[in-house]
Amino acid sequence: MGIDDLPIRDELKGKSPYGAPQLDVPVQLNTNENPYPLPEPLVARIAERVAEAARGLNRYPDRDAVELRTELARYLTRTGGHEVALANVWAANGSNEVLQQLLQTFGGPGRTAIGFEPSYSMHALIARGTGTGWISGPRDEDFRVDVAAAVSAIAENAPDVVFVTSPNNPTGTAVEAETVLALHDAAQAARPGAGALVVVDEAYVEFSHRASLLPLIEGRPNLVISRTMSKAFGAAGLRLGYLAAHPAVVDAVQLVRLPYHLSAVTQATALAALEHTDTLLGYVEQLKTERDRLVAELRAIGYEVTESDANFVQFGHFDGAAGSHEAWQKILDRGVLVRDNGVPGWLRVTAGTPEENDAFLDAVRELKKEQDA
Amino acid sequence: MGIDDLPIRDELKGKSPYGAPQLDVPVQLNTNENPYPLPEPLVARIAERVAEAARGLNRYPDRDAVELRTELARYLTRTGGHEVALANVWAANGSNEVLQQLLQTFGGPGRTAIGFEPSYSMHALIARGTGTGWISGPRDEDFRVDVAAAVSAIAENAPDVVFVTSPNNPTGTAVEAETVLALHDAAQAARPGAGALVVVDEAYVEFSHRASLLPLIEGRPNLVISRTMSKAFGAAGLRLGYLAAHPAVVDAVQLVRLPYHLSAVTQATALAALEHTDTLLGYVEQLKTERDRLVAELRAIGYEVTESDANFVQFGHFDGAAGSHEAWQKILDRGVLVRDNGVPGWLRVTAGTPEENDAFLDAVRELKKEQDA
Repeated sequence: MGIDDLPIRDELKGKSPYGAPQLDVPVQLNTNENPYPLPEPLVARIAERVAEAARGLNRYPDRDAVELRTELARYLTRTGGHEVALANVWAANGSNEVLQQLLQTFGGPGRTAIGFEPSYSMHALIARGTGTGWISGPRDEDFRVDVAAAVSAIAENAPDVVFVTSPNNPTGTAVEAETVLALHDAAQAARPGAGALVVVDEAYVEFSHRASLLPLIEGRPNLVISRTMSKAFGAAGLRLGYLAAHPAVVDAVQLVRLPYHLSAVTQATALAALEHTDTLLGYVEQLKTERDRLVAELRAIGYEVTESDANFVQFGHFDGAAGSHEAWQKILDRGVLVRDNGVPGWLRVTAGTPEENDAFLDAVRELKKEQDA
Repeated sequence: MGIDDLPIRDELKGKSPYGAPQLDVPVQLNTNENPYPLPEPLVARIAERVAEAARGLNRYPDRDAVELRTELARYLTRTGGHEVALANVWAANGSNEVLQQLLQTFGGPGRTAIGFEPSYSMHALIARGTGTGWISGPRDEDFRVDVAAAVSAIAENAPDVVFVTSPNNPTGTAVEAETVLALHDAAQAARPGAGALVVVDEAYVEFSHRASLLPLIEGRPNLVISRTMSKAFGAAGLRLGYLAAHPAVVDAVQLVRLPYHLSAVTQATALAALEHTDTLLGYVEQLKTERDRLVAELRAIGYEVTESDANFVQFGHFDGAAGSHEAWQKILDRGVLVRDNGVPGWLRVTAGTPEENDAFLDAVRELKKEQDA
């Protein structure tokens, strides 16, 4: 008796669940986690706020997460170059759930979404999970969005939803505002009437050399910015994603969100973390410095490196998929786990602590010598 | 600029989000919450376990929630009359998310689900949200599942998913094992080959006079038991639902679950609550006594009452939908919020503390006098 003996949907047959292999290795630089544990004063504050929430845990949580959304709006206003309010912000269990709610509302059966690949593979998987047709759009050979090719793919397919990931995962490349505007305008032109939704996934934006694209939501009700507390806030374990958009978008996702989807302990923990924003953004600055060091040292060793605005770096070029997989294994043999993302010839390494990055650089330095020998 | 100006799906146009009105009233008996706050030793233990989890919050949570599922399996084995293990159990953010994952896997576009209404209205709403066609099956005039009519509806429609809610919400009626077996067998017969999934929603089963239907999963890979910590564990704010089934069902939902869907703080809090199971089940016994008192006193006052195996009671009979809404308002005017569930002529009251139930009984006693006058 296995999965395929059950009455599951045909398109799920033979599929495997998404997820990076979790191996017990000294240096884990494979899932773009923040290497800095939350500081002890924040841990204490979380315990305090969660205890307070636990005293009312027999009641349903605030269905609309008003306090949390207000604080997220305050954070965005302070750091994003554009003033947003409670009504512009929505939150869910990780940006994955935010994106799932958007696809349930704006995608779904009989509709399509486009992304420019390689990109965050969950976009395509969540599309599949919501019955949305997936269109794989192009990138150029430097992994940038080629505006002319992208506009042409949009004009040809007239998708209902357009994903733009900036900085892009797994390549690290950021997207310029003019590019997003060109894709947005093409998407609206391709669907006269209500237009198409453009989702800018800014999961890694706090690590970028460039400003957030948040100001683009002004006057564009079909443009959504998606964010997460997993990376810059060092809270991957918390599962807190959010979006900023026109209030009508926030109203629209209410039609598909599961009621009381966000637990009282999640809300309390996120609020505690937001109280410590300055400390956490200090870690982000350290990680940006380390990311820039990884780029420079990888190049000095002799690797090709894709420009990175994220907390990770794509490097290569190995000999196709077999070459990058072999390199992944050899780095792992030296006690360092990086990510083989399925981009043939390339691997992705997360910026860790200085010590973790040194261990990684030692490993790839040896690898390079071995391969050049 | 409103929702309907956005490119949302046609079937969402003009719809409103699900949710009971939250009014600021002294006695809230409208959402089947457990009135007993978690005991202070448990609150302290939650703070302790969450602090521990917060120290690793920069890392993703255990994607497979192994420790939590192991403890849930232990609880089910102890209380459900059937031995289950980790591999039989899956958990998510509320039983709503469990049901959504089941419908994404076994329902979805081109497929249908049936429920016997009135029942938990989220079944139909989650079906809609996942693109699953909804079939409203019948109940008899005492709100029981009429086996012959139900089997006939299943044979006629050959649904892919069958929902049975026991005890049923909002009516309180439990379903006998023989009934579930008859529906299960009819559902398999109607879909030769892989059969159909039967989901027994036991959200309120700890309050029942009858045993759990958990043993029915033995030898029936298409039968799933759905549970929650919201009610018996007094943790509606935690959002922790789970299921027990054949391991193949647990494997199957992995194909659609969002990776890392269950936060580390949710897992830690649920584990703490499970350590205090005995205390929490003690509150359940008090609530069962109060539920039985509500049934007896409502009848003594002169109301009709549906048999209840849950922590709530359906009472009436008022004069149609207008009559029950009017009664709801008059009870509210006396400071007690009950639920107008859209079952014409009937209202639903949650068993609260003895004091809350006294306030409710005083209100409906006055209402009865007024209506009889």
